Amino acid sequence: MDFNEESIKEHKRLGGAIDIKSKAPLDTKKALSVFYTPGVAACCQEIAKDPKKVNELTWRKNTIAIITDGSAVLGLGDIGPKASLPVMEGKSAIFKEFGDVNAVPICLDTKDTEEIIRFSKLIEPCFGGINLEDISAPRCFEIEKRLKEELKIPVFHDDQHGTAIVTLAGIKNALKVANKNLSETKIVFSGAGAGGIATAKLLICAGAKHLVMCDSRGAIYEGRENLNSAKEKMAKYNLNNEKGSLQEALVGADIFIGVSAPDLLKAEDIAKMAENAIVFAMANPVPEIMPDEAKKGGALVVATGRSDFPNQVNNALCFPGLFRGILDLGAEKFTNEMFIAVAEALADMVSNPQAENIMPPLFDKNVGTKVAEAVKNI
Amino acid sequence: MDFNEESIKEHKRLGGAIDIKSKAPLDTKKALSVFYTPGVAACCQEIAKDPKKVNELTWRKNTIAIITDGSAVLGLGDIGPKASLPVMEGKSAIFKEFGDVNAVPICLDTKDTEEIIRFSKLIEPCFGGINLEDISAPRCFEIEKRLKEELKIPVFHDDQHGTAIVTLAGIKNALKVANKNLSETKIVFSGAGAGGIATAKLLICAGAKHLVMCDSRGAIYEGRENLNSAKEKMAKYNLNNEKGSLQEALVGADIFIGVSAPDLLKAEDIAKMAENAIVFAMANPVPEIMPDEAKKGGALVVATGRSDFPNQVNNALCFPGLFRGILDLGAEKFTNEMFIAVAEALADMVSNPQAENIMPPLFDKNVGTKVAEAVKNI
Repeated sequence: MDFNEESIKEHKRLGGAIDIKSKAPLDTKKALSVFYTPGVAACCQEIAKDPKKVNELTWRKNTIAIITDGSAVLGLGDIGPKASLPVMEGKSAIFKEFGDVNAVPICLDTKDTEEIIRFSKLIEPCFGGINLEDISAPRCFEIEKRLKEELKIPVFHDDQHGTAIVTLAGIKNALKVANKNLSETKIVFSGAGAGGIATAKLLICAGAKHLVMCDSRGAIYEGRENLNSAKEKMAKYNLNNEKGSLQEALVGADIFIGVSAPDLLKAEDIAKMAENAIVFAMANPVPEIMPDEAKKGGALVVATGRSDFPNQVNNALCFPGLFRGILDLGAEKFTNEMFIAVAEALADMVSNPQAENIMPPLFDKNVGTKVAEAVKNI
Repeated sequence: MDFNEESIKEHKRLGGAIDIKSKAPLDTKKALSVFYTPGVAACCQEIAKDPKKVNELTWRKNTIAIITDGSAVLGLGDIGPKASLPVMEGKSAIFKEFGDVNAVPICLDTKDTEEIIRFSKLIEPCFGGINLEDISAPRCFEIEKRLKEELKIPVFHDDQHGTAIVTLAGIKNALKVANKNLSETKIVFSGAGAGGIATAKLLICAGAKHLVMCDSRGAIYEGRENLNSAKEKMAKYNLNNEKGSLQEALVGADIFIGVSAPDLLKAEDIAKMAENAIVFAMANPVPEIMPDEAKKGGALVVATGRSDFPNQVNNALCFPGLFRGILDLGAEKFTNEMFIAVAEALADMVSNPQAENIMPPLFDKNVGTKVAEAVKNI
């Protein structure tokens, strides 16, 4: 049985991936009087007097909302809110198992930017954080920016920053294997959506200087037509103002980062990259180039988003621990410093990076704890 | 230690009353591939092709939202969304323990009717039902009415219908003890808010003919000033068009139903009721009259909302089983027939009703199952 069949079978058998659990033992009249009326009124009154106490007396401090509109789900695109729910439940299960964070999937029947912002503000009283998920670009940028400004709880767009953090972690270890410095590399991106732009920005924060981003029209350069403001900002890192196709941009590149679409590249494209090429082909579920094909073209390190190949670059390595850390801190905002510290912590979990071993294992339950510590030690 | 202190202590110790639980065993690479990428994409695609499958492949079919704005919480009034969260968590715990229903507390930072309606519509893709809670009248009527018209999932305003159902159940058994018929009784209400109006309506559905409703200005009669439409409709059941105070209305009444405010009545007021008077004093946490005082006035059966007196009339007897039943049925709307069937089922659970034993025990976990069966057998 393949993963697809097994996934459908298991989701049917269990009725989804998550459940609510009562922590209160409701087996006596007394327990009901403590957790419901009349006793619970005392907790309400405490919070009414001092709203901060909501984080002492309820699940809020440990509970976030996973908010999506289902417009950019995995590599499947705009499949709508109902069809996105299995992904959000999977994330919720991972949040719980790897970070002990309660994450409630909320799949919204709107793609209106202002409405999604307003919705998120309305639920601030009962959630300690918001994980934005699978909302298409460029709306996701505006939504995240506004929520960070207007809410007093941490907001994280996983498709941007989760992707950026785990990619930076992997790149750090791949560079050790290739014996290169980030600041001296030429990096070519395929994909300038939410994940691509955020990853490029974090790599720049971490020291990268030369990036050529490509979208479906090829290289992004200063003065090109039809650039949104995010792409425009990236154009200046295309140091030689290269124009042309993704394949042309790859000539002499040290690193390829794909967050785009399946089957874009062939071995011959990789062969034109610099020696000891690093290939991160992270389109899901089918990468921009399959690992064996990339190796055939001479790549030294190949990473994908998939669990069935070595070097799985998956946001699940970071998002549970990130929220665990920030909720424990009680901080209102994530920062780039936190993201870089987490990428370093993830890279350091691999004690002796090898071409086929640059990422910590996804199912190691210590990862969440170590990521949370990195956030808290900022 | 009293219930208040114990409640605060326990909520602090546990960090609230509920948690998310992962049903997926995420301890291997394979499990992650089944419940997250790449396998989960197959579930998404199934739902994208056939949206009904969201109820087979996710937790939606067994999951509802508890929506409040914190404007009418217990007897505490408009304490706001944060302060209402402990009550919603308590309800969620009860939903789980007595009905195996996942109920997510959502406390909204708005009291705008249209915004609460719009919010509820936005989350329909990921919830199988909505329990409206502690929203003040008359907004709650409009919100419930519109949502019932505009959503394809069951919507239930517990403060209205939950109160109505458990009160009708208790009244049925109290009438057996008093050896009276509902259709021949004079019923006096204190409180014409959400709970009072809905209870009056359900009693009328069940056969009651003579009701005098009182609000803070006294009896409601045809032609009185300042009546909203709900109160106006009730005025015609004031058969003798009685005017005057609650105390005056009580003269000769068989049943008193209080869903209003603490300490309104004295023994001498009860003494003016008919023989074998039935007193349901359900203001929370302090009733309209304490049971010993009501007995002193000659009441035969006294019920309250409290767990520390006999005959606790508490919505928790019905809401978990009601949703369990309707979610199992897959029906889109609750009906009055369901409500009356549930009241009968609850009454029948007490095999030999006595003055101090008219309600089934709240912590009996069979209650939910029997209530669900009553819904499903309609």
